[in-house]
Amino acid sequence: MKLRRSSRLVDMTHYLLYHPHQLVPLTFFAERYGSAKSSISEDLAIIKQTFEQQGIGLLRTLPGAAGGVQYVPKMSEAEAKQFIQQLCTRLADPDRLLPGGYLYMTDLLGDTRIVNQIGRLYASAFAHEQIDFVVTVATKGIPLAYAVASFLNVPVVIIRRDSKVTEGSMVSINYVSGSSKRIQTMVLSKRSLKEGANVLIVDDFMKAGGTINGMISLLAEFRANVVGIGVLVESEEAEERLVDEYVSLVKLTSVNVKEKQITVEEGNYFHFVK
Amino acid sequence: MKLRRSSRLVDMTHYLLYHPHQLVPLTFFAERYGSAKSSISEDLAIIKQTFEQQGIGLLRTLPGAAGGVQYVPKMSEAEAKQFIQQLCTRLADPDRLLPGGYLYMTDLLGDTRIVNQIGRLYASAFAHEQIDFVVTVATKGIPLAYAVASFLNVPVVIIRRDSKVTEGSMVSINYVSGSSKRIQTMVLSKRSLKEGANVLIVDDFMKAGGTINGMISLLAEFRANVVGIGVLVESEEAEERLVDEYVSLVKLTSVNVKEKQITVEEGNYFHFVK
Repeated sequence: MKLRRSSRLVDMTHYLLYHPHQLVPLTFFAERYGSAKSSISEDLAIIKQTFEQQGIGLLRTLPGAAGGVQYVPKMSEAEAKQFIQQLCTRLADPDRLLPGGYLYMTDLLGDTRIVNQIGRLYASAFAHEQIDFVVTVATKGIPLAYAVASFLNVPVVIIRRDSKVTEGSMVSINYVSGSSKRIQTMVLSKRSLKEGANVLIVDDFMKAGGTINGMISLLAEFRANVVGIGVLVESEEAEERLVDEYVSLVKLTSVNVKEKQITVEEGNYFHFVK
Repeated sequence: MKLRRSSRLVDMTHYLLYHPHQLVPLTFFAERYGSAKSSISEDLAIIKQTFEQQGIGLLRTLPGAAGGVQYVPKMSEAEAKQFIQQLCTRLADPDRLLPGGYLYMTDLLGDTRIVNQIGRLYASAFAHEQIDFVVTVATKGIPLAYAVASFLNVPVVIIRRDSKVTEGSMVSINYVSGSSKRIQTMVLSKRSLKEGANVLIVDDFMKAGGTINGMISLLAEFRANVVGIGVLVESEEAEERLVDEYVSLVKLTSVNVKEKQITVEEGNYFHFVK
């Protein structure tokens, strides 16, 4: 159907936002709107400029017959700084303290706006990597994994604690939890991950890194290539860190149950993206 | 910063898409772009027309001082039909058959594009309801719940099978599973849901409805008002259905393990939305 420029801009913006990291041939839009390719190019130039100016992301245009346009979600450093600062403030609220010095974070992880922003942040940080799957472990990392994967336009694979009849045959490993030193189990459905895939690991919390280490071992059974690790909150209290390279948004530096004080600071995100 | 109409259309489209169901005052956009309210109204008329024509959703404009504009995601009947048909075809693939007659669905639930479309479908079906929270039970319903909640712009609450120290005090119930007749447990963190909230229940699969019935009982402890129930797949094989009113996208009518045949048809979605 033939559309005017103003309507094309609205529809193309919608299309690109819902198909991130996908190369869309110019002919696709030209046919969709019954327009000349030159008009589409002009439209894309406007969208590209606005996306960059407003901190929405990049619009890559690849020339040639196999070319097209690709929307890459990117969060500006200023927006990322502000968002991470807000997270720190909310996490430092003493009302979050639970018996045993644990932190209640379920409200933040239930907030779809926050979860989607975290997804944008990680998709932005790993935009240049070749990623086939986002992997997490049940339960709390799941929303974060889906948010990141939506912005990267790749599927999610969920490692479970128990095997289920609806998952088919599974590969399982035992691992030692870094903090509690207990032996735990993780399982992954055999069909869920193809051999040799490039994966990004995402989780909500990391202390010693035992769980993430376990995930790496399990993924090795699938000959997966771990291209990155993203954790929402890292805790500095770990005696010994089992995982070296990861990207954290927030660092929990100390929890004082008696004084009801939680100290939170920026994670290493900006070291990584710079 | 002052923007031209073409750039305003791109930025406003992005803003509205990422803030569904939120009333945005016209002055917000007028100040954001240094434009007159009359220009903003003209922009919105273009966006409204394009959103409706392209099946993106509705743009409601509320007049007056407390008014503004609100984007309501809506999927057209034609798009919904086509999407549900594709789901049926993919679910009927005999490769999904697992020992015991179970169906492997993890690949579909791991596909962020499919999950987001399911979210749009349910948000579309329940757009006219007052919903404060989307509630699901770990694990498989979680991605669906987040997708729906993102389009409705409300938080998600996850019922768990086991209590966790990071959840604080919990309310728990025992219930009888409809199919296996076993007694099972569900727990919900006390802080996660405020009393008297309007909730939408979302889950991936329903046979007799025992799990959903259990969720309703647990939610009653929070005096929650269940305004709707959405299930991705309902199985017709249940002898007795414990839940009457629900919206399903797909109905599994028969599974023949010996012949390797799965029969799937449209659920009751279109009865509900009409």
